[in-house]
Amino acid sequence: MTRTVIAQGTFDILHPGHVHYLEEAATMGDELVVIVARKANVDHKEAPICPATQRRDVVGALEAVDEAMLGHEEDIFVPIETIDPDVIALGHDQHLDDEAIETELERRGIDCEVRRASGREPTDEEELLSTRLIIDRILERRG
Amino acid sequence: MTRTVIAQGTFDILHPGHVHYLEEAATMGDELVVIVARKANVDHKEAPICPATQRRDVVGALEAVDEAMLGHEEDIFVPIETIDPDVIALGHDQHLDDEAIETELERRGIDCEVRRASGREPTDEEELLSTRLIIDRILERRG
Repeated sequence: MTRTVIAQGTFDILHPGHVHYLEEAATMGDELVVIVARKANVDHKEAPICPATQRRDVVGALEAVDEAMLGHEEDIFVPIETIDPDVIALGHDQHLDDEAIETELERRGIDCEVRRASGREPTDEEELLSTRLIIDRILERRG
Repeated sequence: MTRTVIAQGTFDILHPGHVHYLEEAATMGDELVVIVARKANVDHKEAPICPATQRRDVVGALEAVDEAMLGHEEDIFVPIETIDPDVIALGHDQHLDDEAIETELERRGIDCEVRRASGREPTDEEELLSTRLIIDRILERRG
């Protein structure tokens, strides 16, 4: 029996925090599917810079990732229903309500565990571990 | 006999053009080692935004890459001498003189082939296939 894990995010500018999250998510099962948010699904922060297909292709090239796919335009639970995962791994800093997700999964009859990944311990004080920090550094140096 | 390929670059903000280059380089042998340029080695374009160790860690997480390491501060041929590769794969748009590299390899007694990878065919007109284009888009939207 293959144990499938779903991870999800925007992955606008890839950094080692993303890599840590996905590598940890991969250890929670046998197969890791990543759902990459479409621009329409990103409402809690500014619109991503890179197109959705580009973000999907870069994430899909990571060793930890078996498959990367775009999310559903309106209902983010649709691919989860289709994949029927054993685990949903959330990033340590993702603004999502774990309990609300569990309730919705139950309502839809999806029997899976919701887990939070840990954050990456910075190995270097210079590390820019969020897309926001990378963009701020670009604006500071080149703006 | 393991056929070792070296690829190299700055890899400041990872995009599908990098992924294409490294996946093609990987097909040129059995093992792909990527040398990530230190800031001091980047003199033909603006200094990278992300620290060298961060760029190395993200590139090293790609499926196509067996090992990613930082380049030498002063002499970019030092890791090439140590690794003694069978192939050096250059990116399609890298500003490097293939013949000058071949001459220097010969002078140092490194017997290896210098090949150019192809460019990625954009799959979507929205794709941002260079760090420069991604930075320009950030400055345009957020600056």
